[in-house]
Amino acid sequence: MSSVFTKIINGEIPCYKIYEDDKTFAFLDIHPETKGHTLVIPKNEVDKLYELPEEDYIALMQTAKKLSQNMEKVLGRRTLWKVVGTDVPHAHIHLEPHDETWFYGREVEMTPEEFEEIREKLEYKG
Amino acid sequence: MSSVFTKIINGEIPCYKIYEDDKTFAFLDIHPETKGHTLVIPKNEVDKLYELPEEDYIALMQTAKKLSQNMEKVLGRRTLWKVVGTDVPHAHIHLEPHDETWFYGREVEMTPEEFEEIREKLEYKG
Repeated sequence: MSSVFTKIINGEIPCYKIYEDDKTFAFLDIHPETKGHTLVIPKNEVDKLYELPEEDYIALMQTAKKLSQNMEKVLGRRTLWKVVGTDVPHAHIHLEPHDETWFYGREVEMTPEEFEEIREKLEYKG
Repeated sequence: MSSVFTKIINGEIPCYKIYEDDKTFAFLDIHPETKGHTLVIPKNEVDKLYELPEEDYIALMQTAKKLSQNMEKVLGRRTLWKVVGTDVPHAHIHLEPHDETWFYGREVEMTPEEFEEIREKLEYKG
């Protein structure tokens, strides 16, 4: 059975999409720890990112790099990363704008309008 | 002035070294959140990993991948990543063996003998 993330990639589950290319995909986390919290995933569905074949792994890291740079440019704050992955067995990197008030496991309340507003800011077409 | 991590690379400050190649270096975090907590760093001293030139960035990610695989192989637990970097202005990736009792910001007490014991287990020569 496909992971929830593969269903998002295939458009079977809606998302606030930030970026897509041949090998990678990015969208807003719907349980954000900070506003702008983004998930970057490989299209190749593996549990752990360090299990990815070299080409898919490098592609994922290149996407994480450019989206991190763009997030900092747009939001003016350092981009943090987290890779935990014990929730969904499809490798993913959390990108989160640094926030002094942040704490692990926090969930920030956001309306659909706020999600869409920040999605438009962070959408990456470069 | 060199960062504390550059001083570690240069041997001016001692460390529990795990790995070294032309472009990257890894050693145990002396304030470990879990036993085995490792820092992977580029030799090129930049503040944020996404500021690294492509070649150094890819080298860092390849080292993070193989050390993550090795950590899981040796300790039998999933390897987590964290990139925060607001403490030392020299890019670094935290690799931490997953631990159900983990919480963010915890510090595990370890004796020098315990550091050396886990260093020997995690040392990577491959």
